[in-house]
Amino acid sequence: MHTTTDSLPHAQADVTIDLGDRSYPILIGDGLLTQASSWSAIGNRRASALIVTNETVAPLYAASLAGALAPLFVQVRTLALPDGEVYKDWAHLNLIFDELLGAEADRRTVLFALGGGVVGDMTGFAAACYMRGVAFVQVPTTLLAQVDSSVGGKTAINHPLGKNMIGAFHQPQRVVCDLAVLDTLPDREMSAGLAEVIKYGASIDVEFLGWLESNIEALRARERRALAHAVRRCCEIKAQVVGADEKEAGLRAILNFGHTFGHAIEAGLGYGAWLHGEGVGCGMVMAATLSARLGLVADDFARRIEALIARAGLPTRGPRALTAARYLELMRVDKKAEAGDIRFILLDGESHATLRTAPEADVVAVIEQLTEAA
Amino acid sequence: MHTTTDSLPHAQADVTIDLGDRSYPILIGDGLLTQASSWSAIGNRRASALIVTNETVAPLYAASLAGALAPLFVQVRTLALPDGEVYKDWAHLNLIFDELLGAEADRRTVLFALGGGVVGDMTGFAAACYMRGVAFVQVPTTLLAQVDSSVGGKTAINHPLGKNMIGAFHQPQRVVCDLAVLDTLPDREMSAGLAEVIKYGASIDVEFLGWLESNIEALRARERRALAHAVRRCCEIKAQVVGADEKEAGLRAILNFGHTFGHAIEAGLGYGAWLHGEGVGCGMVMAATLSARLGLVADDFARRIEALIARAGLPTRGPRALTAARYLELMRVDKKAEAGDIRFILLDGESHATLRTAPEADVVAVIEQLTEAA
Repeated sequence: MHTTTDSLPHAQADVTIDLGDRSYPILIGDGLLTQASSWSAIGNRRASALIVTNETVAPLYAASLAGALAPLFVQVRTLALPDGEVYKDWAHLNLIFDELLGAEADRRTVLFALGGGVVGDMTGFAAACYMRGVAFVQVPTTLLAQVDSSVGGKTAINHPLGKNMIGAFHQPQRVVCDLAVLDTLPDREMSAGLAEVIKYGASIDVEFLGWLESNIEALRARERRALAHAVRRCCEIKAQVVGADEKEAGLRAILNFGHTFGHAIEAGLGYGAWLHGEGVGCGMVMAATLSARLGLVADDFARRIEALIARAGLPTRGPRALTAARYLELMRVDKKAEAGDIRFILLDGESHATLRTAPEADVVAVIEQLTEAA
Repeated sequence: MHTTTDSLPHAQADVTIDLGDRSYPILIGDGLLTQASSWSAIGNRRASALIVTNETVAPLYAASLAGALAPLFVQVRTLALPDGEVYKDWAHLNLIFDELLGAEADRRTVLFALGGGVVGDMTGFAAACYMRGVAFVQVPTTLLAQVDSSVGGKTAINHPLGKNMIGAFHQPQRVVCDLAVLDTLPDREMSAGLAEVIKYGASIDVEFLGWLESNIEALRARERRALAHAVRRCCEIKAQVVGADEKEAGLRAILNFGHTFGHAIEAGLGYGAWLHGEGVGCGMVMAATLSARLGLVADDFARRIEALIARAGLPTRGPRALTAARYLELMRVDKKAEAGDIRFILLDGESHATLRTAPEADVVAVIEQLTEAA
């Protein structure tokens, strides 16, 4: 899937996720949060809306969104969850159900996920399960959520024994990516989002990889034109992959480049110690290096990816606290594992992802090579 | 939907739920649990199976089912939950996830729901959510589950503020109704199952209603030919309704005749005090009486339904502990309620169900008329 990047990125652009009667648009642009057109045809004057957000985002944007939605619903309420991956569990999911049931919310209720990947995953899963399914809208406020987690309908919570183990496929009605909200995103979160952006270049679109190498500083500086192009290109790629494989029967797995190692790092350190994007960044270095070790791709390409990940402000070495044996243990329970084999998304060519198993000795060697020195 | 009942019921019969690529068969017959043909094409020699059951059913049938499945899977495990609607909650659902993750069960795992409606709802919801969806098979061991809850893909757990509020539509791969297991069903549970059987006659198929009036004693005595006909006829009707309206957009709601009142009784007394079928039995008397009060159906027909419900060994009067005001409060949060209006499945003709609202004064009058005398 090597497509040409657009030479004239727009400040505002739309992408459509094509899934038959579950199709939906992704709106991308400046200041969308408070523009009435962002919410056209979403409201229902006989229904209520619930904005689910977190305690960090709520003071910044919840009032603006509530104000924009107020004319469209009979009632708009806001629930702010604590901020962090560590709260992506049943206890906090249940706070959403408590809120909905306490307000006697019916099946026409619309949930709005205002926040990053954790808020999106939890709100989406709550919408999937509340009364066996109500509508929801993704309003991602992190770069990571805008380019990846808000698109495609994967929702979940974590279990003590594994990340995203309890969830559902439930597509949103719409995704609204307001680029202006990225101005308040901490630098560390911006870098974590760039990990997923780089993922599309590294494993799917080599031209986009080249564009990123020329524009990584502009993205870190949050230049609007660069952001608009990157978010749109990522959403275009994701739309193609999700449209072809909604339920991750095969192709969609390629979107998980770097994630098998990355999930092991996140779970091994305890969720929240490393950001998801940080795990993915380091995990991509490991996956690319493993690909090169197996002779599937040139070592130069693996080093090219490593260099871009470092320029994005991301870790390229695994934490000292995790042994290779611990990685193996954690990866075996990963969803991509089937009956004991560990499957990886590897590169068998520049920006060409493939799903395959790897000899354990090579996996161990790569982890040990790419772990921080004591 | 007034169809002719078959004059020659078979001891074994199949019904198909037609939902495109999610279609599945219902097998109905004697001794199916231990017949290899019941499980054809379900197994996977690279996957594991988990039988989810309860502490009452486990000692009776878990070993037989595990033995039948053993040749078909790499491993077959059994998890027995405590028995009762009061345990249909997140804490007990999570025991299924703990078991699956502890055994490193992958996406090819197949869950088997061996039990009544509670086991089926919880196992189905666990299958819907585990790794965003794995396969499951319904092996209903109560009459209620065989004729109603195991068919159609509605799965859920309860929330303290409402029954079945957290759930999913997730279709099983197959439903296996072994009539022999009904021999160990307590009489009270048998009557509760008959409530759902009567529901199909009372609200959808007037010929079947007549057949039930002639065969209610044979059913209570668990005569195989009568059971085979009743289970098959109920599944046929449910198959037609579910095939036309999988997600309960409209038509499927008619399967909830008696359930709005019934849910209020169950929730008001605390889940488990009355069996679900007992609530539905009494709820049907209330719904039929309300229909007659509104002039939608002859009072004689309401009394005919009441008489059959009494002959099935079911309560026809609501519990003294619940006031009409409490019913109204509980019914407003019921899933059929939309923004304050309470909608009922009423009869606007003999065995003809319709979804509509009713004046509050009439609802209150019917509840008060049909509540046990002090």
